[in-house]
Amino acid sequence: MADVRRAADTETRSRRPTILLDCDPGHDDAIAIVAAAHYANLVGITTVAGNAPLERTTYNALVMRDLLGIDVAVHSGSGRPLVAEPKFAAFVHGESGLDGADLPPPTTALDGTHGVEFIIETCRANEGIWIVATGPLTNIGLVLRVAPDIAKRIAGISLMGGGTFGNRSTMAEFNIWADPEAASIVFDYGGQLVMAGLDVTHQFQATPERIAQITAMPGQLASIMSDLFGFFAATYLARHEPGSIDGPAVHDPLAVLALTHPDLFQRQHQHVSIEVSGELTRGMTVIDRRLLVERHAPNCDVLTSIDADRAFELVAQSIAHFST
Amino acid sequence: MADVRRAADTETRSRRPTILLDCDPGHDDAIAIVAAAHYANLVGITTVAGNAPLERTTYNALVMRDLLGIDVAVHSGSGRPLVAEPKFAAFVHGESGLDGADLPPPTTALDGTHGVEFIIETCRANEGIWIVATGPLTNIGLVLRVAPDIAKRIAGISLMGGGTFGNRSTMAEFNIWADPEAASIVFDYGGQLVMAGLDVTHQFQATPERIAQITAMPGQLASIMSDLFGFFAATYLARHEPGSIDGPAVHDPLAVLALTHPDLFQRQHQHVSIEVSGELTRGMTVIDRRLLVERHAPNCDVLTSIDADRAFELVAQSIAHFST
Amino acid sequence: MADVRRAADTETRSRRPTILLDCDPGHDDAIAIVAAAHYANLVGITTVAGNAPLERTTYNALVMRDLLGIDVAVHSGSGRPLVAEPKFAAFVHGESGLDGADLPPPTTALDGTHGVEFIIETCRANEGIWIVATGPLTNIGLVLRVAPDIAKRIAGISLMGGGTFGNRSTMAEFNIWADPEAASIVFDYGGQLVMAGLDVTHQFQATPERIAQITAMPGQLASIMSDLFGFFAATYLARHEPGSIDGPAVHDPLAVLALTHPDLFQRQHQHVSIEVSGELTRGMTVIDRRLLVERHAPNCDVLTSIDADRAFELVAQSIAHFST
Amino acid sequence: MADVRRAADTETRSRRPTILLDCDPGHDDAIAIVAAAHYANLVGITTVAGNAPLERTTYNALVMRDLLGIDVAVHSGSGRPLVAEPKFAAFVHGESGLDGADLPPPTTALDGTHGVEFIIETCRANEGIWIVATGPLTNIGLVLRVAPDIAKRIAGISLMGGGTFGNRSTMAEFNIWADPEAASIVFDYGGQLVMAGLDVTHQFQATPERIAQITAMPGQLASIMSDLFGFFAATYLARHEPGSIDGPAVHDPLAVLALTHPDLFQRQHQHVSIEVSGELTRGMTVIDRRLLVERHAPNCDVLTSIDADRAFELVAQSIAHFST
Repeated sequence: MADVRRAADTETRSRRPTILLDCDPGHDDAIAIVAAAHYANLVGITTVAGNAPLERTTYNALVMRDLLGIDVAVHSGSGRPLVAEPKFAAFVHGESGLDGADLPPPTTALDGTHGVEFIIETCRANEGIWIVATGPLTNIGLVLRVAPDIAKRIAGISLMGGGTFGNRSTMAEFNIWADPEAASIVFDYGGQLVMAGLDVTHQFQATPERIAQITAMPGQLASIMSDLFGFFAATYLARHEPGSIDGPAVHDPLAVLALTHPDLFQRQHQHVSIEVSGELTRGMTVIDRRLLVERHAPNCDVLTSIDADRAFELVAQSIAHFST
Repeated sequence: MADVRRAADTETRSRRPTILLDCDPGHDDAIAIVAAAHYANLVGITTVAGNAPLERTTYNALVMRDLLGIDVAVHSGSGRPLVAEPKFAAFVHGESGLDGADLPPPTTALDGTHGVEFIIETCRANEGIWIVATGPLTNIGLVLRVAPDIAKRIAGISLMGGGTFGNRSTMAEFNIWADPEAASIVFDYGGQLVMAGLDVTHQFQATPERIAQITAMPGQLASIMSDLFGFFAATYLARHEPGSIDGPAVHDPLAVLALTHPDLFQRQHQHVSIEVSGELTRGMTVIDRRLLVERHAPNCDVLTSIDADRAFELVAQSIAHFST
Repeated sequence: MADVRRAADTETRSRRPTILLDCDPGHDDAIAIVAAAHYANLVGITTVAGNAPLERTTYNALVMRDLLGIDVAVHSGSGRPLVAEPKFAAFVHGESGLDGADLPPPTTALDGTHGVEFIIETCRANEGIWIVATGPLTNIGLVLRVAPDIAKRIAGISLMGGGTFGNRSTMAEFNIWADPEAASIVFDYGGQLVMAGLDVTHQFQATPERIAQITAMPGQLASIMSDLFGFFAATYLARHEPGSIDGPAVHDPLAVLALTHPDLFQRQHQHVSIEVSGELTRGMTVIDRRLLVERHAPNCDVLTSIDADRAFELVAQSIAHFST
Repeated sequence: MADVRRAADTETRSRRPTILLDCDPGHDDAIAIVAAAHYANLVGITTVAGNAPLERTTYNALVMRDLLGIDVAVHSGSGRPLVAEPKFAAFVHGESGLDGADLPPPTTALDGTHGVEFIIETCRANEGIWIVATGPLTNIGLVLRVAPDIAKRIAGISLMGGGTFGNRSTMAEFNIWADPEAASIVFDYGGQLVMAGLDVTHQFQATPERIAQITAMPGQLASIMSDLFGFFAATYLARHEPGSIDGPAVHDPLAVLALTHPDLFQRQHQHVSIEVSGELTRGMTVIDRRLLVERHAPNCDVLTSIDADRAFELVAQSIAHFST
């Protein structure tokens, strides 16, 4: 792996943003944690109910902290959406949120502060933080309403969610669908916004070859990650038409890489708003793609394509870095 | 006025609950503050945007604190609804929220803590507090989401809002209409809930005779209250069909009196939920009045009638108490 | 029974309107047919899916025609709502729509014309007809859209539906709930409109005493009606809280009696519109009961109370008339 | 032009379907009429309110019949949508629906039958007709509800409408937006369905070169069409970002050409449903583009691309045919 690591030092034009990661691990959230810990200045992890109930996503975040051996605060946040009924994604991530690997129980405890409070305090103490959100946007929505000054203190919000098609309903991606009201707060917040939606994340699939690359790596983290990729691939492929995909879309790390390695992506500056009331479309990201003069002013950098090979190399390198 | 005050000591079977008042003064909010300060153990006032923008409702709360000469913390809370667009009620309360009287500017400053944080801290420090809410329910909704433990620490929530008909839209009362999503959080919170809706508050009108009673009282507060009643009556009567009402409905103090003088009221235990998505009914309190076996289990004490004469005597006495 | 019949001739100040009855029999629809055949000039019966599927409501209408021995055209109309999913009310009326009695099969055939076409032709051939609708408003909505001239050719529309509370959902009565889009067409049509909603029909209950009066009558129709009342009472009482009602609400004939015996009722002229999109309130009749100057202009005579004893006498007399 | 006409005989592999055209002319509807008259067996034209009020779209259809000198029945249909408020598109087509040319007044009268009735009668008399709909789907929705047997008597419905982005609202194309309830009836009708949405029609632009080709043609029709293209291009370009398009999208004839010259198009078989209740998405065609096993079964041939050069040649030839 030495070669790979050297390559990382020279090949990618990365920058090192300060990131607070709000997540609901979740297989791809776990990879986002690894990437954030390696390529960014990670100042905290907050958890939210989403892929699994809050106790599970929090447990999984603590497990990941141990596995990476990093000294980053983990705070538990919202246990349910703002208004919507709580619904999880066990059909993708298993009941635990991280099914498929034999995870060592966490050895460290949660800090007692609520995740929303932690985000507010952290973003007030250090201006210019990027919030990266890879789960439902409940915590971020609450932060923006309880502490509206945060909108101007942060560098921006980079999130995984939405797209021009859905994976939970016909038009809605899971994270937005799970808490459309919180998402509508975030998309209207007025600052920098980067969106890694399904259009780009479905271009970033963990193909058998890519998974094999992880499996071949030495060390505990790579072994666990290989197992997680294996489970994730199995549930993903089972849900998709045979032959329609080569592997599971590795959604969440793209919200990190969009900041740390922006040149991996093509993006369009567009207006995105959230449908909260449709019968068929509740939780849809409504992207104004019209060419009309009257179209809405852009509020979001929507990622549209990715250099998937380079991006997976970066993911592999970040796993390798912590896999000792 | 001495007689009146003596009467208060003997006539009413009151109890003295501990109250935290969340409000958007507003003419009738001002009266709720007076009643709460006199009949309850008032441990704090938080403000919310509603009848007027947050700066105005906060300013008005500070003015009222000075006028009453009470030592109660005032904290500014949410400047806008959770999801809905901000809209005010200048057509009822004037641009200032308290048009009609010459108010002395506040001599004391706000505490810096956000109202939502103050409510959380106060309700954690003292179990068994009643939250009385007389504005849009934004602050309370945020409290219940950021600190779900509060639901079990408080005695309950008594609110002015809703009813079987509307005053802002055909079916929606202003406070619920202004933030339906927050209201839906509150009505689903699972603890004690008392609702003073339009059905009961429209039975409690400031008739010319009742206003004359306030006008005749000595002291600064009574003089200001008389002016406020006068303005409120004028805007109210201008909006209503001639002859349809005798004076403005004095909504907000009823959410206080429902706790301090429960025997003034008739009430029904019913299920109330909030319509957040209707085209004609968004912001409506959906009260299940069916007699069917399958009707929803009650979650709210809905006030249905009031002894208006006795209630106004109590309001008059509370004004007299502070009008020196 | 001779006495009763004589009484009918003298006691009631009736008028004899020309009626086209659109219905979905249905126990109370059956009674509406009897009342219309006796007290009005009944020029046709059209059927609609509602209480039961179209084949059943049509079958039941043909059965009733035979039982009454009347020469009135019966035409089958819409088999499903305009937009809503078809749902029936077997939990009230049984699978057949008229469970509970041993009905003789119809001896006469349907006319081939579609009910919508028949209504259009009939209302064009004879101006001043009242359309009485006691089922979902699908046929009438289609008539008004396919032949907008009908709106000015008819005397008006008297319908059973709606109210300030629901029986199918919390706020929606079955007929409106079953086809809210059609109902919205009808309530916006611009002509005379009479609404017998649950507020008045729940005042008109088939108490045990009243059912006993029918049971005691001689003749085939009374015997069948007695059986139908018995079944209807049983399902109705099973759905309601013990002690909350004395018998089933006999909804549908009131839409007939409102025209033939208007002095039985109190009514208010109000604006009624239909909520088609609410999550909790879809299918609700939104009655503007505000006293505000800005309230909507009335478009409907909403029946608010009834002289139930006199009304049931009239129903009994109409049954007696045909029970030979 | 002789060459062009000869080419038409040999170049295109066309078939000659029997078509009943339901339209709201409208500039591109006018071209659809020309194409249908030339390439199909056109058995009738019905009109609907849409681009302009019904009197105008009907007038324009009569004008087109005269200009082409064809013997085809024209029937006026629905003057307003099923449920939605009537709204027109004068900002695209001018107040008359066909602004920009000096049109000779119609010399022939309407047949008195309502368009809905005409469609029902015609499709009962001749099985296997294609209904081509280039306006709001009000008439077709009414046909399917009043005469559900028509669904099995026709060959199918080919319509211009919808797409993955909007032109009237962010997500909704005008025809679907104007009557979403009628559209939902049509998309659920169960038979063959072809959809020419904005994704394909925006590939078919009347560029300056193409318009110049029409302008250079001899004869009255070409002259009028040249004027209509000019007006249409001007309003279209004024609404779009400079440089974003080369000319107006000539939407409506594609619903004809999809039947007469199917090999011009790429298409995908997909499930399409209509959002009738969204705040941002009402009137959107919800196309299920998921690759999931659980995706909805296809109900529609969605046109995805077109050979625009060949298609415009065909349009030009059809104009030339009638331009004498």
